[in-house]
Amino acid sequence: MKDKNMLMIPGPTPVPAQVLQAMAKHPIGHRSGDYSKIQEEVSANLKWLHQTAQDVQMLTVSGTGAMEAGIINFLSRGDRVLVGCNGKFGERWGEVAEAYGLNVERITAEWGKPLDPAAFQEKLAADTEKQIKAVILTHSETSTAVLNDLETINKAVKEHGEALIMVDAVTSMGAISVPIDEWGLDVVASGSQKGFMIPPGLGFVAVSEKAWKAYETANLPRYYLDLGKYRKATAKHTTPFTPPVNLVFGLQVALQMMREEGLEAIFARHQRLTQGTRAAVKALGLSPFAPDDCASPAVTAVLPTGIEAEAIRSTLRNKFDIAMAGGQDHLKGKIFRIGHLGFVCERDILAAIAALEATLQQLGYEGATPGAGVAAAAAVFVG
Amino acid sequence: MKDKNMLMIPGPTPVPAQVLQAMAKHPIGHRSGDYSKIQEEVSANLKWLHQTAQDVQMLTVSGTGAMEAGIINFLSRGDRVLVGCNGKFGERWGEVAEAYGLNVERITAEWGKPLDPAAFQEKLAADTEKQIKAVILTHSETSTAVLNDLETINKAVKEHGEALIMVDAVTSMGAISVPIDEWGLDVVASGSQKGFMIPPGLGFVAVSEKAWKAYETANLPRYYLDLGKYRKATAKHTTPFTPPVNLVFGLQVALQMMREEGLEAIFARHQRLTQGTRAAVKALGLSPFAPDDCASPAVTAVLPTGIEAEAIRSTLRNKFDIAMAGGQDHLKGKIFRIGHLGFVCERDILAAIAALEATLQQLGYEGATPGAGVAAAAAVFVG
Repeated sequence: MKDKNMLMIPGPTPVPAQVLQAMAKHPIGHRSGDYSKIQEEVSANLKWLHQTAQDVQMLTVSGTGAMEAGIINFLSRGDRVLVGCNGKFGERWGEVAEAYGLNVERITAEWGKPLDPAAFQEKLAADTEKQIKAVILTHSETSTAVLNDLETINKAVKEHGEALIMVDAVTSMGAISVPIDEWGLDVVASGSQKGFMIPPGLGFVAVSEKAWKAYETANLPRYYLDLGKYRKATAKHTTPFTPPVNLVFGLQVALQMMREEGLEAIFARHQRLTQGTRAAVKALGLSPFAPDDCASPAVTAVLPTGIEAEAIRSTLRNKFDIAMAGGQDHLKGKIFRIGHLGFVCERDILAAIAALEATLQQLGYEGATPGAGVAAAAAVFVG
Repeated sequence: MKDKNMLMIPGPTPVPAQVLQAMAKHPIGHRSGDYSKIQEEVSANLKWLHQTAQDVQMLTVSGTGAMEAGIINFLSRGDRVLVGCNGKFGERWGEVAEAYGLNVERITAEWGKPLDPAAFQEKLAADTEKQIKAVILTHSETSTAVLNDLETINKAVKEHGEALIMVDAVTSMGAISVPIDEWGLDVVASGSQKGFMIPPGLGFVAVSEKAWKAYETANLPRYYLDLGKYRKATAKHTTPFTPPVNLVFGLQVALQMMREEGLEAIFARHQRLTQGTRAAVKALGLSPFAPDDCASPAVTAVLPTGIEAEAIRSTLRNKFDIAMAGGQDHLKGKIFRIGHLGFVCERDILAAIAALEATLQQLGYEGATPGAGVAAAAAVFVG
């Protein structure tokens, strides 16, 4: 059946029909008063979602572009930075930092395990000369479905006093609370095709006053990704470069929907989806790749034993038209990932788990009792 | 009347209904076979439009981001570059080059006048040590509606032999022939919201073999804008970073429409629209800002005398719901600009000119004979 695809990947995530309709409106001029009115509303709602009083900068980029902007605007060549690496995206930020000539020290953890806050605390405490200028880490590591302990690592950064904390919140923003102002997070980057419930094409960067102060002396080269240009324009409800007007139409509607649902309700929904998915996976005799105490609110990675991850994915795709994500880099073929981020409800999880059960049956997997997964998810949802 | 706006600005340009509808489809995963099939088709059609056998790289950026990528991937810190500056965009490329520590020499012309090819030829001929690594210029300078003589300037670059030519074709691609392979243009950048007939959010960069050779030793920092990453991915019909899937749906349809119309027909249409607009402007006693022999095929800038440019724009907007562009920087309030790029037909020009005539009447302008503008445009279109 055509066009019946169900997206259960960690991005692009499902998009509400009213967002798609808004995107299909004819574009308007981005230098018009009508556009500025939309951007003013969007700006206010982005601050609400980011739990910050600062303007959130909006760029025409993917999540990687947003995070790169977050790193390169506040540092100078040779600056020492700590980068948390326990998955594909943490490693990417290390590569970005090196591409710009920063002095990168990686704090690593095995893929599938969380970063150890004590490792950051030690490095930061030992740096009495305050040479560490930034700590860069991924909050929800999409590649492994691990949620890093941002709150505790941030406390160590705050004790250090000098370093900025730069956070990839690409799959945590809109899925779990990221209280930017309360915690004093300096740079928080995210992307539209995740918790924002709109298609890819927009990146967001929230920036603290402390980071803007660092901006004044930071000397890494940039122009299109120069957040200072965005800051000036955003304050006047406009953009330094042509924005993707139709995606902004969609963002306007998506943010209205999010405000109507409410932050706490959104976060609680993602918790239920996560718990239901994990309970189901366990009930089917499969293992969540990430431990319970560091489960991403956006995605659950599953490590199947006695059955091929790629066989599960292709049967889900071919027989049930459900897209789940595979593993990345050395996890390719070893895990599969179930996205439960954004415009996803409990019914979607029940449907996906039911299809997963049927897939396991079809593949002759004998480790699971048919119905056990759905029953376990249902127990979470009705509990 | 709501939502009856007519876009006569040089970007975003009008978008066909079938493109808007394609954009409103639910996104699919960008790592899926279905997405790769679309990208394969789009890639082939981009090559056709760009008149090149090379893959055209597609980035999630505005036109500025595309041009920055085109500059920074093929040069190294301290490299000497010539930048043609006769408008806002030429000046912007000088700023980009300086932001990355290039040794910038500007070749300027008054805004509204074309760049002098002889000035490039002299500089290049004098550079016997081949220290000039690139010549950067804007083909159609959107801010002044001047078309620079790319063909002649390119010949001087080819005689030099060493320098790359880097072209901002943001408002010329899809409006006038830019025969990339035939002329040997090294870097040609453009953006989706112009001749491509889709909303903003995608940038394109075509790159010659010679430029890719320079890439191997170029050392300016980049990651998100690293075209080498795009090149590898494009060859496999995928993207290094998440693409704006819904805009790509729109691009697919727009390129199909362009192929159906045919390159020569598209260029001829833009010539007729340009000639009709200019004839009408003159017949109304107003002056095209750019001389006839360097008229942009995308936009006509008008210098009114005895009447305020901004009064014309606001009456057109308020009474007829037509958006025309104002002047930029020091031309603000002095000129207005009529876009005739992309999904624009002769009827659109007749309507816009008729509304312009009515606007002039409403504002008490006595320099024009009512009907003279429409008659002059019609004479071009039926001729």
